Order: sequence, then structure tokens, then C-alpha cells
Amino acid sequence: MYTLHGMTGSGNCYKPALLMTQLGIAFRWIEVDLLQGATRTPAFLALNPNGKVPLLELPDGRRLAESNAMLCYLAEGTPLLPADRYARAKVFEWLFFEQYSHEPFIATVRFWVHYLNEAESRRERIAEAMPRGYAALGVMEQQLAHTPFLTGADYTIADIALYAYTHVAHQGGYRLDDYPAIRAWLQRVAQQPGYVAMELRA
Amino acid sequence: MYTLHGMTGSGNCYKPALLMTQLGIAFRWIEVDLLQGATRTPAFLALNPNGKVPLLELPDGRRLAESNAMLCYLAEGTPLLPADRYARAKVFEWLFFEQYSHEPFIATVRFWVHYLNEAESRRERIAEAMPRGYAALGVMEQQLAHTPFLTGADYTIADIALYAYTHVAHQGGYRLDDYPAIRAWLQRVAQQPGYVAMELRA
Repeated sequence: MYTLHGMTGSGNCYKPALLMTQLGIAFRWIEVDLLQGATRTPAFLALNPNGKVPLLELPDGRRLAESNAMLCYLAEGTPLLPADRYARAKVFEWLFFEQYSHEPFIATVRFWVHYLNEAESRRERIAEAMPRGYAALGVMEQQLAHTPFLTGADYTIADIALYAYTHVAHQGGYRLDDYPAIRAWLQRVAQQPGYVAMELRA
Repeated sequence: MYTLHGMTGSGNCYKPALLMTQLGIAFRWIEVDLLQGATRTPAFLALNPNGKVPLLELPDGRRLAESNAMLCYLAEGTPLLPADRYARAKVFEWLFFEQYSHEPFIATVRFWVHYLNEAESRRERIAEAMPRGYAALGVMEQQLAHTPFLTGADYTIADIALYAYTHVAHQGGYRLDDYPAIRAWLQRVAQQPGYVAMELRA
């Protein structure tokens, strides 16, 4: 059986949990409280030298870090990662976009505000990050105004990756009022077979 | 023929250029000066709504953004992206690590210091970013102390992705004195068949 080390409420940890649930892959969840430093212990660093969750242990004991690498691994051979070379590359494009242009602004602001309760002390940093988060949402909106899912007609791991933090962006103070295509897409994702909400994942 | 829109000196733009050179894929380079706002013009935003280089145009006119997505696309079916599912996933792991844990600290500091000449005015930000950049180098060092390349015995696109900004990290003020395995790996990468230096790429 797969073992997923993760923190409940973390979008990055939710991604592989949602995908495995949707693919019918059984897994064990080990809660890791990164707020208490649990990803920085020698025991955890031996599992993942980068000291981050999620961390996936395969049934044979081999390990994999990086949420989006897990999505690629787990979705291989399923319709959630298309076989066509260009369609696949467009999925990768959104996965890298998510980690570089979306997560550092949307997830990070949520972390400061929602988990650390530092909206006041980090006001300047938040004011700097939010325009970049909204820019990322603008790129998504532009695509989703034309296609039901990020890479076209079909639901893929690109949608899972972007859904993870977009659907809780409001917890960081983001407003989606001006992003109707994103709001409709959030509903579409939540209607996919096997969908499970982030908090109910365990 | 492929067309690559990029800025000379950008590690992200160098990645697909190096790979295409090594794979013997002919391409045309279009210089885009992002320092002059060339990635923010309406014409460029029509090509890439995220307003970034590199941008790759395929021979049939379809486009691809995100340097590491290009690496995946171009290396498909070659030894630089292994066919084995787990070996492939480990390559993806390093590609996502690069964009999330390495580039934002190593490339960004270099950009501030080397391109914007703002080492003084950004002193506080640089002092904050550098420990995270060194942490990323530490993760690489730990791996490269055991294997000649990042995912094991063979040179892959993971090495290209991490080489791009590691080999110019000193331009941001990083010192590699305490990273002997990285220094040896930089030399190994530069000895790969078809290698071309960043500045000579065009």
C-alpha cells in the first residue's frame, strides 16, 4: 500500500490524496505537523532531504517528493495524464506554472494569514504578493473562459494541481468576484467522480 | 523548424537551447529583452499570457511555455528522459524542486545583483533568500556526493534544469567552496556531448 506523509489543510498534500482517491488507489495517511517542525527532524530529513511534505512512499518502499511529481507518477497511463506528447506537455506547463507563478503567492499568503495569523505583521509582503497571485488567477481565467478545464475539454492532473490552492485562496484574502470562469471551474472540479474535499481527505 | 523566444543570459531560456543543441534539433532564436519590457507587450502576451520567456514555437506553430515543460516535451523518447516510470518521476521531482526551491533564491538573487545592480538596495531581501538558496544547494550536494548525476548514473534533463542557474550562482554572490560534489558535477555536465556554453548559445 502507498503511504502519504502530509499535513491536513495543505494544498500540496491534498493533491496526491485527491488523485489517489479518484483513481481508487488505497493509501495510508501519516499526519506531519510542519508547524511544529515535524518536517525538520533528522528522521524526516532522512526520508526527504528537502524537508517538505507531501512525501509519498510507494508499496515497494521507494520514495517520491514534490506533489506535482507524484501527480505525474500516479496518473501515468490514466486519462488524467494524456498520452499525446503535446497534450502531455501542456499539462506539464500548468504544473510548472502552478509551482512558480501561483503557489508562492496564493498558497503563501494563505499560510501567513490563515495558519500563522500574521496578516498584520506581514502586511507589506502580502501587498507585494497579491498582485502576482491575481496575475496568476488572470492567466487561469483567460484559459478557462475558453475551455472547461485548463488544458481543454478534459479533466487532468493540471486541474488537480491548480484546484488545490485556488479553492482556498479566499482564506488568504483573495476574492474571486472578477473571475467567473474560475468559479465555474471550481464547481466543475468538485463534481468530478471520486472527488473528496480537502478536510475530509483522511 | 522550432523557434525559441528567449533572453541571452537567462538560465531558464538556456535550458531548452542547451537540450536542443545536444539533441541535434535545429532552432531559430528570437532575442526578447525582458529588461526593456518586451515580455509585456500585447504582441508577446498573445503568444504567452503569462508574459515570460522562454517561449517555444513548434514547427507546426503550436506553442509551449515553462522551460521545464519544454525539456519534458523535447526529451521525450530520448535517454535524457528515462522511460521507466519511477526513474522518470525522479526526474520530475528535480524539475519541480528546481522551480520551487532553487530558482526563486538562486536565479532571483543573481537577477537582482547581476542584472539590476541592486545588491545594496535589496540587501535585506538577499540576506533572506541566500540561506534558502544554500539549502537547495545542500540538497543537491547530498545527492551528488553519492551519484554522478542528480538522478543516478545517467545525465538527464534534471541535470540541465539544475545546471542552468547553479553554474552562474556566483554572479549573485553564492560561493560553492563548501560544495565539492556540485563543483565536480558542473564540470561533468560541461563535458557532455554537444554541450554549449550559455553565452555562446545563439
